[in-house]
Amino acid sequence: MYVVNFKEREETPVEFANSKNVMMRWLIGRRTGAKTYAMRHFDIKPGGIIPLHTHSEEHEIFVLEGEAKVLSDVEGLVAKKDDVVFVPSEMPHGYDNTEGTKSFRFICVIPLLDQE
Amino acid sequence: MYVVNFKEREETPVEFANSKNVMMRWLIGRRTGAKTYAMRHFDIKPGGIIPLHTHSEEHEIFVLEGEAKVLSDVEGLVAKKDDVVFVPSEMPHGYDNTEGTKSFRFICVIPLLDQE
Repeated sequence: MYVVNFKEREETPVEFANSKNVMMRWLIGRRTGAKTYAMRHFDIKPGGIIPLHTHSEEHEIFVLEGEAKVLSDVEGLVAKKDDVVFVPSEMPHGYDNTEGTKSFRFICVIPLLDQE
Repeated sequence: MYVVNFKEREETPVEFANSKNVMMRWLIGRRTGAKTYAMRHFDIKPGGIIPLHTHSEEHEIFVLEGEAKVLSDVEGLVAKKDDVVFVPSEMPHGYDNTEGTKSFRFICVIPLLDQE
């Protein structure tokens, strides 16, 4: 059992899928107790983007701050504070804050990966 | 893939462990896409409490609003907005907002249960 402010977790730049201006923290990962799923924090800065990409792991997301376009097979999706986003396995997805004026921050829960 | 405001999910009172003044929503459950873990939203109102209880499912929690005492084997724990709480399997835990003046709200991710 522990309680920790999310800002105490190390923040590192996101580089996959040609992401730009995105920072990530592992809040609860394998080394901090997670058994089968991990909780991460993403901060997509104004002007930032995680381009469309695809993988087998599903995402369970809760938006903490801001607003961004959700890239997917569905046109016109937008996610904002207090929204829940579910990305099924193998569904193309991404988040575009290139026209935003503040950070788009969210919690993303993902099945545990070997490289985590 | 979907995007939904958390308030669109049905809210029901929490009754386990003699909880008082606590409301819960299944944000992402088995019927809405979850495969191995589910995301719920809890709102412990001022004067509310989830008393100390124990179960095998671990919790991965992110606090959205407010502050509450965290009941556990550890004395004096408090969780507040932007805190991450990890509750391991079989660890006694609870949340006490009986002296609070505003809601203590958090996201809680849990392995999927048959009854969900």
